[in-house]
Amino acid sequence: MQQNAEIMTPFGIEIDLETGAMPKATNHIKRNASDMRGYYQDADALERLIAAADPLHYEVFEHPVPEVPGHLMYCISKLYPGTVGRECFMTKGHYHTISETAEIYLCLRGEGQMVMKTAAGRFDAKPMRRGMMVYVPPLWAHRSVNTGNEPLVSFCVYPADAGHNYGDIEVEGFPSRVFLIDGEVVIR
Amino acid sequence: MQQNAEIMTPFGIEIDLETGAMPKATNHIKRNASDMRGYYQDADALERLIAAADPLHYEVFEHPVPEVPGHLMYCISKLYPGTVGRECFMTKGHYHTISETAEIYLCLRGEGQMVMKTAAGRFDAKPMRRGMMVYVPPLWAHRSVNTGNEPLVSFCVYPADAGHNYGDIEVEGFPSRVFLIDGEVVIR
Repeated sequence: MQQNAEIMTPFGIEIDLETGAMPKATNHIKRNASDMRGYYQDADALERLIAAADPLHYEVFEHPVPEVPGHLMYCISKLYPGTVGRECFMTKGHYHTISETAEIYLCLRGEGQMVMKTAAGRFDAKPMRRGMMVYVPPLWAHRSVNTGNEPLVSFCVYPADAGHNYGDIEVEGFPSRVFLIDGEVVIR
Repeated sequence: MQQNAEIMTPFGIEIDLETGAMPKATNHIKRNASDMRGYYQDADALERLIAAADPLHYEVFEHPVPEVPGHLMYCISKLYPGTVGRECFMTKGHYHTISETAEIYLCLRGEGQMVMKTAAGRFDAKPMRRGMMVYVPPLWAHRSVNTGNEPLVSFCVYPADAGHNYGDIEVEGFPSRVFLIDGEVVIR
């Protein structure tokens, strides 16, 4: 048993369940279009987007806890709508550094897909919309894709020691991409 | 790395973010008033309640995942409103069997308190209302208390191997109880 002084004090934090706003978040991670070079099929379209406005692509809001076993990290993920060419805006995607750890995404707003892959080449995609909880099992890399016309906002929970491994996805990519073609969502 | 065949397939499950309904839950745990003997201060009032109707006290809805390290269990907890004497309806409360594991409660509906204690005697309570996320750190026993007049509904996430230890709370109780006295919430 730990000593009393080492035990963390409980806390509450407010989350707007309509918009995903977490006003007391202390960490705020931003990714603009210019942070996404190398991720989209149409690199020229991305460069035009960056040159025009370099829009905010996605944001993550956190109020962190210790990154040690037994704790649970949580965040709000907010992915803006848009396309690069015809490919829908997406997050970089990652494995967990401790790869055998799951993640839960509870979608609060918007429409999209959670696309997932394993190192061995399996692929899966699950629709995201308000009230849909997607369970990303251990060993699956995962990326959110916004197929709608408003922000795709999710409440996410994962083991606090899981860590993020972006490097493998930079190298591997995902086997399928998500496009909007004539108003239809196409995964190919 | 695990072999492909051993890797769990991702899934999505719907949760009504207004009511907490999870229509595809496969586990449904119910606790009636008669399951709560020994927990309330006024044992006679509880017996009268049981004799009159033995009302449903709280329910838990789950769609379980493997109870092994790296997975995340999640559920909907629904605690009905009411009092036993003047003490508000509450859950039994538990430590985790692996005590150094956290739990996240995201309240979707209702009003209440999350009351918490450590084995060393610390006590804490955090208000619960729609949009409030309460972080129960490792080593804290926790119990939900409904202080309002509608169900107190939360979406909960915890490490899937954490387990539930109810026995220690049966013996120890909590150092404070939550009452409704002349319409006011009193913790004492």
